[in-house]
Amino acid sequence: MSANRPTEATEESAARAASGGDGAAPDTYDVIVLGGGPVGENVADRVHAAGLSAVVVEHELVGGECSYWACMPSKALLRPVTARSEARRVPGLSDAVAGPLDAPAVLAHRDATVSYWKDDGQVRWLDSVGLDLVRGRARLAGPRRVTVEGGRTLVARHAVAVCTGSRPVLPNVPGLAAAKPWTSREATSAKAVPGRLVIVGGGVVGVEMATAWRALGASVTLLVRGDGLLPRMEPFAGHLVAESLAEAGVFLRTGVEVSEVRREAPGGPVTVLLDTGDEIVADELLIATGRAPRTEDLGLETVGLTPGGWLEVDDTLRVDGVPGGWLYGVGDVNHRALLTHQGKYQARVAGAVIAARARGVPLLETDRWGAHVATADRHAVPQVVFSDPEAAAVGLSAAEAERAGYRIRVIDHDLGAVAGASLYADGYRGRARMVVDLDREVLLGVTFVGPGVGELLHSATVAVAGEVPIERLWHAVPAYPTISEVWLRLLEAFRGD
Amino acid sequence: MSANRPTEATEESAARAASGGDGAAPDTYDVIVLGGGPVGENVADRVHAAGLSAVVVEHELVGGECSYWACMPSKALLRPVTARSEARRVPGLSDAVAGPLDAPAVLAHRDATVSYWKDDGQVRWLDSVGLDLVRGRARLAGPRRVTVEGGRTLVARHAVAVCTGSRPVLPNVPGLAAAKPWTSREATSAKAVPGRLVIVGGGVVGVEMATAWRALGASVTLLVRGDGLLPRMEPFAGHLVAESLAEAGVFLRTGVEVSEVRREAPGGPVTVLLDTGDEIVADELLIATGRAPRTEDLGLETVGLTPGGWLEVDDTLRVDGVPGGWLYGVGDVNHRALLTHQGKYQARVAGAVIAARARGVPLLETDRWGAHVATADRHAVPQVVFSDPEAAAVGLSAAEAERAGYRIRVIDHDLGAVAGASLYADGYRGRARMVVDLDREVLLGVTFVGPGVGELLHSATVAVAGEVPIERLWHAVPAYPTISEVWLRLLEAFRGD
Repeated sequence: MSANRPTEATEESAARAASGGDGAAPDTYDVIVLGGGPVGENVADRVHAAGLSAVVVEHELVGGECSYWACMPSKALLRPVTARSEARRVPGLSDAVAGPLDAPAVLAHRDATVSYWKDDGQVRWLDSVGLDLVRGRARLAGPRRVTVEGGRTLVARHAVAVCTGSRPVLPNVPGLAAAKPWTSREATSAKAVPGRLVIVGGGVVGVEMATAWRALGASVTLLVRGDGLLPRMEPFAGHLVAESLAEAGVFLRTGVEVSEVRREAPGGPVTVLLDTGDEIVADELLIATGRAPRTEDLGLETVGLTPGGWLEVDDTLRVDGVPGGWLYGVGDVNHRALLTHQGKYQARVAGAVIAARARGVPLLETDRWGAHVATADRHAVPQVVFSDPEAAAVGLSAAEAERAGYRIRVIDHDLGAVAGASLYADGYRGRARMVVDLDREVLLGVTFVGPGVGELLHSATVAVAGEVPIERLWHAVPAYPTISEVWLRLLEAFRGD
Repeated sequence: MSANRPTEATEESAARAASGGDGAAPDTYDVIVLGGGPVGENVADRVHAAGLSAVVVEHELVGGECSYWACMPSKALLRPVTARSEARRVPGLSDAVAGPLDAPAVLAHRDATVSYWKDDGQVRWLDSVGLDLVRGRARLAGPRRVTVEGGRTLVARHAVAVCTGSRPVLPNVPGLAAAKPWTSREATSAKAVPGRLVIVGGGVVGVEMATAWRALGASVTLLVRGDGLLPRMEPFAGHLVAESLAEAGVFLRTGVEVSEVRREAPGGPVTVLLDTGDEIVADELLIATGRAPRTEDLGLETVGLTPGGWLEVDDTLRVDGVPGGWLYGVGDVNHRALLTHQGKYQARVAGAVIAARARGVPLLETDRWGAHVATADRHAVPQVVFSDPEAAAVGLSAAEAERAGYRIRVIDHDLGAVAGASLYADGYRGRARMVVDLDREVLLGVTFVGPGVGELLHSATVAVAGEVPIERLWHAVPAYPTISEVWLRLLEAFRGD
């Protein structure tokens, strides 16, 4: 299964490819894409669909981090956890699912989900669309020029798009690197359930992996520097998830830092020393504390940029300060929003921009919500944490909206008080919040936390990105009895006074 | 649990009630509401919140059909079915749920969900809000005057709102009435699983009850006059649900009519004769073929209207042709949309209208999407069928849009090809359709069929009711990997050519 294949585009593009190329010399393309993850694939597909030739350069697996070591395997590990958790709250079914998950079956399914870490399917898709693939590490060698290890040189007529993504960062803790800790890669691809797992970091990766590995049987300790989980979301998201993790048997320690790590023998136990003086012994240690751009070894210095940094781009995804404007930074590398779906969104925008500029067509930059600007990056980024309960948010949190100077009103509602939620799961616990811009009476942000809210988020994303006025949302009637009826409660509360 | 209690309004309204009434004589109210279902409760609550006095007259249970014999018990019966069906498609969990549902546990939960068919909770809510309740059958006795069985007379200063809903209709088939068939009431409240159940009717009630009782252990035969199920939705909805029901062991027969019914002894087997000459013997027979308004015995003739018909109303929910304009028809009785949530929507509109007219405030009728017109009834009615798979739709089907004269384009997508869907349930089957108004480039209707799509519908309802342009929907990014990503596929397909 190829997770990110833009399926609709496939047939059209394939037909176009079959009708003959543009007769370019082999090493010259209209567009060179560095990185064959979902973002690079989408940039290449878009420019190719617009009639440009394109090549993708990738030194690992085509399909990228998301397909093999992030979204896909993590969701494959997590779906059984949430499905079991929900079934346990459904009368008539709860007894049947009281036991543990079949961990080998879950891991085997995860392996199938990632195509056993082979990219044949993705490569076939590139072929079928008519996109060239060059395997190997690529470096810029001056404007519009890319060298690939092995000596091949590629030249771009119009654009080079850097879509190399990001990588986990290990903090500077004595003994840590030598202890060979897990990062998100090992955590999503481990072949067996560790007996004892210590996780450092309370963001999305830490929370999701604590959820998955605990349910698969590991004894899990989650260490967080701050005072709660999911710090980028509304505070109640972290509270509800922490409560649920504790009930599942996860040991959560907040306000602690790791001062040293020791692993005496490879494969042996690892000792984690805390700044409190405590020691925790475990079988594996997962570090999930941050990410850095994959820009260290791209030859950025040959075009006047500093290697290793995030790429600064404008809303058309073009890198700032590069004469001729031929360099684009799309996806994680630009640090606008480190999420696969947002990178793919940027890829759609960048593809349209590159094609328009290549044809000399004026851009629609003056239209904030036109096809040539990634405006949603600043106003309507959605995120679903596949924890138990799920945490889903779009746009600004109340704190972010206040910091940005909006005059806001915050409306909260207890999701457990919604009939559709109590029918979904007995004893449903959850919460919803909307942040209203009082000057325009539109929504700046919405957060849902609770079982089954992942698919509910897109209603909020349409409302926020669509800037649908509250008055009109009043006519968007939620079906009864669904969890979506929380919309009615939120709007009633806003209009009630 | 009180399903339809408008919880946010509760506290404010209670405070208002505690601060003293308006000193009216006991039998005179600003507003008289006939029928204490969700619709009547909401009309009363709205006008009361606006400062008017109100009384609710109800001769059955406060909370109405939805709370005791429709939405709530049916969803309580169906949620275990869909939860088990989904769990069966989740690796690591599937073996645990291979067995049958615990039917007694499901029925006991259903009983608790409907508060054991007692309305104390709902009555307490009326009390807490400060709404009077009169128990008994009510009849109009001329303009603004209502008599209640037992002799009490009520007078309305401003308005009478008829919110008496609808009832199932038995077709005129020899022997049918005497055989005492189930209607939706008995089907949702039965105390035991019948051995053999014949269901007549392939609409929502027929489909949902076939789904529930088959999963609870009954042998089910579903008889449909037309050629498919769920005839008011896109055809693929009925196809997918029929396929799934067949796999569950339901015998589906289309294109047949019942010519006669025989039940020799009360409680004994019932024989259903078809126009094909076939006979089917069963333990119970559910008739789910249509509904009629509860307006037969309301004294409509005393105000110049015909008893027994649907009430014709304008977009402010006021009944046409009644001098003085004091009569409103809200919910099922007006036949605009026979759905609880749409009736509650109308109740919110009617409550605002009645309050505005009572205060002499001009209505916002000129604004199609203002607070005083139930515009969504004609453009954006959502419905979720809690079958397996779920079928969810809002707005117009392709056929309806064509009949209405729109210039449209129809975009379909296979939901099983969406990564988030395949992660949700292995072997996911489903389909999505959007109907685009080509002149305005907005959506006229959207349909999703598949496991877990019930909460996805509200994204479409916001898009349709909000008339969000396709160009802007392009910036509403679905989170990866969710089922919602089908939005991206639909939009790509529309923009691709």
